[in-house]
Amino acid sequence: LQAETQPPHPAVIAHRGASGYLPEHTLEAKALAYGQGADFLEQDVVATRDGTLIVLHDIQLEPVSDVARRFPQRCRADGHFYAIDFDIDEIRQLRVTGRDSGDKGSGSVYEAENYRIPTLEEELQLISRLNRATGRQVGIYPEIKHPQWHRAHGMDLTRMLIEQLAGAGYRRYTDPVFVQCFDIAEVRRIRDELGSALRLIQLVDASQTYAQLLTRGGLAELTRYAQGLGPAYDQLVAADSSQGKARPSELFSHARDAGLLLHPYTFKRQDLPDYAPELESLLALFLGELRVDGVFCDFPDVAVAIRDAVSTTGHTGGKAALVSDGFG
Amino acid sequence: LQAETQPPHPAVIAHRGASGYLPEHTLEAKALAYGQGADFLEQDVVATRDGTLIVLHDIQLEPVSDVARRFPQRCRADGHFYAIDFDIDEIRQLRVTGRDSGDKGSGSVYEAENYRIPTLEEELQLISRLNRATGRQVGIYPEIKHPQWHRAHGMDLTRMLIEQLAGAGYRRYTDPVFVQCFDIAEVRRIRDELGSALRLIQLVDASQTYAQLLTRGGLAELTRYAQGLGPAYDQLVAADSSQGKARPSELFSHARDAGLLLHPYTFKRQDLPDYAPELESLLALFLGELRVDGVFCDFPDVAVAIRDAVSTTGHTGGKAALVSDGFG
Repeated sequence: LQAETQPPHPAVIAHRGASGYLPEHTLEAKALAYGQGADFLEQDVVATRDGTLIVLHDIQLEPVSDVARRFPQRCRADGHFYAIDFDIDEIRQLRVTGRDSGDKGSGSVYEAENYRIPTLEEELQLISRLNRATGRQVGIYPEIKHPQWHRAHGMDLTRMLIEQLAGAGYRRYTDPVFVQCFDIAEVRRIRDELGSALRLIQLVDASQTYAQLLTRGGLAELTRYAQGLGPAYDQLVAADSSQGKARPSELFSHARDAGLLLHPYTFKRQDLPDYAPELESLLALFLGELRVDGVFCDFPDVAVAIRDAVSTTGHTGGKAALVSDGFG
Repeated sequence: LQAETQPPHPAVIAHRGASGYLPEHTLEAKALAYGQGADFLEQDVVATRDGTLIVLHDIQLEPVSDVARRFPQRCRADGHFYAIDFDIDEIRQLRVTGRDSGDKGSGSVYEAENYRIPTLEEELQLISRLNRATGRQVGIYPEIKHPQWHRAHGMDLTRMLIEQLAGAGYRRYTDPVFVQCFDIAEVRRIRDELGSALRLIQLVDASQTYAQLLTRGGLAELTRYAQGLGPAYDQLVAADSSQGKARPSELFSHARDAGLLLHPYTFKRQDLPDYAPELESLLALFLGELRVDGVFCDFPDVAVAIRDAVSTTGHTGGKAALVSDGFG
């Protein structure tokens, strides 16, 4: 790792890898995203029974693997198979079968293929190897998944992650990493109790949980320990936005006034809003007009192409170019 | 698969995947090459004891895996561990550890990582999935490895490959596939005995084995059943070539006169010739001046960038632009 990081701006964050093209969170999806030019690769992090950190979106294994077929006796009374009830050697036997819920709209099953759930270590080594070989400095973007759940099972997931990252060379503010979490107390704890210097992103959604945090006063307090916000992209545009007439929301303006980075999620081809009914126009709005600082995207190649196009058409990067009043 | 294939010209063939960046022939190396814009992904094909085709450069397993540690009793008297002595379930247990010989100059060991030897089916499904998801039509480029060795062990590797490809939808001349082999009789057999319509590339080297084939008469005969030649790139430039003064060899001119495609190997950063001491200048010579039809390259992103640069600087693709007299 080099001392100084100057990621491209706005940053393209590969959401669960290039998950619009390959099964989410497989190393194949991460290698593809790397080849497509993503600036950061995202990891969702959960712990196994024997304390190995793995890269998996849910605390349950059955949404993306054949665990129910391989270990039918291992479900809890609620019918779920939890990663924290399995050792890493067992999880290595699972095959990624695609997401039952059709989250990506494919509903595909990957049984004849051989995709695996990677450990965090494997993924960090892949990225490290690629950065050494290419001379690029693609960053990581781990999310601490359900820290209270892990604590209730005797695992301090946050501490485990921060320690593993430090061991892998991610220690300083300028190292190419953002740590993200939806848990407000846990984000603060990373800075205040664990003393980590890494850049932190507070994930939020439109629920009441974050109402106080997203006031002017709450955002001012957040800047004391976090560098930015990861909201749903809808939270950044006014409710009365329409196609060709999107306006920034109050939250957008307040976050900008507070000096927070904005990394909205998730740019994919499903559930597109009326004000931008195509992924491409949605990305152009957020990257070219709203000028957010990064986007979580299932299609990194599309986001890179649009970022590069808007970057060469008169916009300048960085906060200087930001406007917090009307546009579009 | 679509009816008509018009691959970019010249074609960038990812040699063992993006093997300059990741362990050769892993699916991660293939996904990376796909993301970097390669037009074809290469597969070396050998058979297991139970008749599964796998993607592996050598008939032995120990150059790139931990087979000696996992199955110490399974070496032959010659000290080698042959893929054909192992079932696929055993090969699935192996980890790719890097090439002992330091073929890529790294000498790295990948033990803490978890790279696998893929089956041909897994790789074909990866590429098929990616082509469906992206709308691109990236091709495959399987090499039949040591067909006589396989025949001596009761395996008709060539027939097995052609049948598996047909089952996966690769049947016609225009399908996005080239089949390659060093064995002269076997290449002819694919067309004459097996009746395959796929495009065939005769691999050659500078040894005496190919002396007769590489005469004008031999090349004219080759055109009856094969579409092109895969020579070492050195065979295509005159022996007295020097930096800035590279000239095409007789073989180059004879092959062009015969109308054969030229897909030279291997463009990497090791063992570069005096007439082009950098990979980039070597690629510019072959893609921009010699105008070969494709290059096997360990660094697909570099080859794509140079191909695209020379394609926009006045050269036109296709045979019309070829000159077989002096240049450079």
